[in-house]
Amino acid sequence: MSTALLLRGLSSKRIVSKFIPQELFSRSRVFLSTSSVPITTISDLLKLKPSEPVSDVQVNGFVRSARSLKNREFFSIVDGSSVVPLQAVIPTDKAVGLTVGAAVRLRGSWVPSPAHGQSHELSVDEAIVLGPSDASTFPIQNKYQTPGYLRTLPHLRPRLPFNAALMRFRSELISSLTQFFNNCEFIQTHTPILTSSDCEGAGEVFQVSSAHAQSNSTSEEGKHFFRRPVYATVSAQLHLEALAQALGNVWTLSPTFRAERSDTQRHLSEFYMLEAEMSFTDDIETVMDLLEGMLRHVGASMAHSNVVQDLMIRTPDRELDLATAEEVKQRWSGLTQGPWPRITYTEAIGLLKSSEIPFTHEPKWGEDLHTEHEKYIATKVSENHSPVFVTHYPRQIKPFYMKADSHDPITPVPGQTVASFDLLVPEFCEIAGGSLREHRLDRLKHSMWLRGINSKAAPLGDDQQPFESENNLDWYVDLRRWGCPPHGGFGLGFDRLICYLSGVQTVHDSSAFPRWYGRCHC
Amino acid sequence: MSTALLLRGLSSKRIVSKFIPQELFSRSRVFLSTSSVPITTISDLLKLKPSEPVSDVQVNGFVRSARSLKNREFFSIVDGSSVVPLQAVIPTDKAVGLTVGAAVRLRGSWVPSPAHGQSHELSVDEAIVLGPSDASTFPIQNKYQTPGYLRTLPHLRPRLPFNAALMRFRSELISSLTQFFNNCEFIQTHTPILTSSDCEGAGEVFQVSSAHAQSNSTSEEGKHFFRRPVYATVSAQLHLEALAQALGNVWTLSPTFRAERSDTQRHLSEFYMLEAEMSFTDDIETVMDLLEGMLRHVGASMAHSNVVQDLMIRTPDRELDLATAEEVKQRWSGLTQGPWPRITYTEAIGLLKSSEIPFTHEPKWGEDLHTEHEKYIATKVSENHSPVFVTHYPRQIKPFYMKADSHDPITPVPGQTVASFDLLVPEFCEIAGGSLREHRLDRLKHSMWLRGINSKAAPLGDDQQPFESENNLDWYVDLRRWGCPPHGGFGLGFDRLICYLSGVQTVHDSSAFPRWYGRCHC
Repeated sequence: MSTALLLRGLSSKRIVSKFIPQELFSRSRVFLSTSSVPITTISDLLKLKPSEPVSDVQVNGFVRSARSLKNREFFSIVDGSSVVPLQAVIPTDKAVGLTVGAAVRLRGSWVPSPAHGQSHELSVDEAIVLGPSDASTFPIQNKYQTPGYLRTLPHLRPRLPFNAALMRFRSELISSLTQFFNNCEFIQTHTPILTSSDCEGAGEVFQVSSAHAQSNSTSEEGKHFFRRPVYATVSAQLHLEALAQALGNVWTLSPTFRAERSDTQRHLSEFYMLEAEMSFTDDIETVMDLLEGMLRHVGASMAHSNVVQDLMIRTPDRELDLATAEEVKQRWSGLTQGPWPRITYTEAIGLLKSSEIPFTHEPKWGEDLHTEHEKYIATKVSENHSPVFVTHYPRQIKPFYMKADSHDPITPVPGQTVASFDLLVPEFCEIAGGSLREHRLDRLKHSMWLRGINSKAAPLGDDQQPFESENNLDWYVDLRRWGCPPHGGFGLGFDRLICYLSGVQTVHDSSAFPRWYGRCHC
Repeated sequence: MSTALLLRGLSSKRIVSKFIPQELFSRSRVFLSTSSVPITTISDLLKLKPSEPVSDVQVNGFVRSARSLKNREFFSIVDGSSVVPLQAVIPTDKAVGLTVGAAVRLRGSWVPSPAHGQSHELSVDEAIVLGPSDASTFPIQNKYQTPGYLRTLPHLRPRLPFNAALMRFRSELISSLTQFFNNCEFIQTHTPILTSSDCEGAGEVFQVSSAHAQSNSTSEEGKHFFRRPVYATVSAQLHLEALAQALGNVWTLSPTFRAERSDTQRHLSEFYMLEAEMSFTDDIETVMDLLEGMLRHVGASMAHSNVVQDLMIRTPDRELDLATAEEVKQRWSGLTQGPWPRITYTEAIGLLKSSEIPFTHEPKWGEDLHTEHEKYIATKVSENHSPVFVTHYPRQIKPFYMKADSHDPITPVPGQTVASFDLLVPEFCEIAGGSLREHRLDRLKHSMWLRGINSKAAPLGDDQQPFESENNLDWYVDLRRWGCPPHGGFGLGFDRLICYLSGVQTVHDSSAFPRWYGRCHC
């Protein structure tokens, strides 16, 4: 195999390199030497539809499928940039080693295609195999393979063009969100993964310990790498509140963890949460405005992008496992068209009670909304497929840190609701939730006391802090002792959002290396 | 306390909200109602130097210090946006509750200051305490406090203006890097935190398990939440290689973990790594070009930013714990001025041997460079304070996945070096490293065999995969079976980069919530 790959003009001297302008670092995978604008991907090449052949075209990619016709071989070539493959036509004698799965470099001419199925094709003069493939054992086929089977091959699954598109979508979504928060002057933070605090005071958590623990230690402290039990975080919120109290408005897109032994389409053991916290804010409507503005920005900036169009292409195979293109289109337009209704939990209960649907769980004020209830509300209240806010939930079903409503004219039990919301989307139900946080010391302590959460104060500034056996939230309480302004924020399930906006039915397929109960491949 | 906070014109109806344009979500913390351009932070306000008083100014912030003079009180107010505080002057009778640490809203006029120390000050008409502070117990003081003491207060430490600036720097650095990789069409990926593979085959790792383990299970598999032991990742590289093989060029900025029982200024148990992987590349110079181009982009886009200027402000206190402003300035100019030298490991050993420095560890070909060696090289070879690449290390001291050099004219033992590099910076030594990866199946297996790494193939596509007791790298080997093009990449210690470019001496202070051996506060 030739080791001299032709990369676009990058020539570095051994000892001293000159600065290479960043344009040269564009993906050097496809280019037209005759074009002044270099073509960098198969996606870009497919957009080029010249009436005359263009010579000197070079493509790097992978063989997705192959078939013979007379003395010529026809290959579908993919490179992750497009769900539509490139057709390459190669004389049989030059197609040695081009087996399904192989990584190849092809050189030739980009010509109008005489056959149906594509407007142009690559007429190949030279084919170089850069990474051979034992096609007889390659587990990825160019035919329908069940999502369940593909989940056993996370290291190969992105080789499927649709799965590659999902990864590109995730990347562009991150970029769009980063831009939104930059525009709004929110500070992006790295909140910790390992924590000695237990955010929700509930839920299953993962414990993290040194693989070579000092198990012979006699003290409880000595047994732990960090001198106390440490967990994988379930939410960045508490730490984000500390940062908001110093920096103003902050956000993070961070991995979070739940050790739930459930295997549903909506849950992962490791998942990304987008969390934002606003400082000097005491209106829950403002927090909802932020979340709504963020998703409207995503809608406006991405709905017509190439990658979203790619995600809407349906083949008979893909139809089996995905929402229809029509549904996905409605979800996107629902983000930007018309208003997003906001109703209170109390109003939602009223709607549920007056409906004629025979719910499995009877709707009852003071109890959580079940998925069947959320589905009904999201469908009934939504306007033009918009998301729906449900606000002011009963205090008793929400965490200790949420701020109680001082008054709410339509709540039957005044003071018994919290300034909170859930964001429901049609079909997928809850994807985000937020609240004002109780910023007053006495109220927060009372709320913790009501729930039996221990909050005795530890001496501050003491390096040898006594070992804390419980949830270790004293630092969180401390935030209220010294200048805690009113504040609030939200958390959004990033993998769920990707499912909703791509039509993928389960978070097991929106993440590259999904982890859930019993499953941590690779 | 008034609960009706004046936020800039956000008025949402209860049931149905109109879309609020994103400009309105800018940090609504300071504004001038008389100005057509709203002022949003203390940082912005300080830049405004009118000769006549400007009335109707509103500021949200925290009291950093207070002093009395006759019937007036003088406050330093900070909001995280600037290391320089705002001076507020308030008649004593209106300054009730404005204790050190309190979160306040001040309204008044922005006027030229009659005193030294600031050009303008806020003459306050109305002061509202939004979050009171018990100043007598507030651990953050407006005087020198040791970094060690402040590390015991991670939840309060960002209230210090310099620490807030560090957080803003991290945010802007992320943004600059996101922009760089967007420009270069690299795809941002979320690599997993939990993994059943052991990247380096060495080093201490954290084990992750359900806090409520099924310890009564009789089978080894049943004891584990994921049916196998799972670790917190030490590097995203292996997973990134799988993604690069499908998507082309990829990158990630992800948390990584080491359970080392060391307490040095350069190590954390949890730290962020920026890792990038280039596909269809078989020249290590190209990978170095990428890293160099990335850091030159950071230098060009950020050196003159407000936040970097803020980081160079030195008070007598800050001088105790930080590199000098002059040093930090040199580091920034070193990024963009002149070439970055590239020398081989073999040349480096030659330089070390010919030097007259009495090293503690004798430099010897085939052994790792010690910090004292790296310091000498970084200083001796650097041009105008530039970083220095050291390339082509001996195979025996590098991990199994690095690609062996086929030939290297100045290496004494041909074939015994790998296509690798470390990036050294003056004073701080190694901050990044990279290599080509062995993409050929037989060579990779041989390299693993040489190091005693088990790589027996497991049946693929089998949901009930047999329990793997060892490093579980079969999937990584598999990547080479089906179309693995030449590829390479690098990893950069993000927290170290922040130290280097801010003048902070230890990674314990560049991260908001640092974790190391024995330490996981909050």
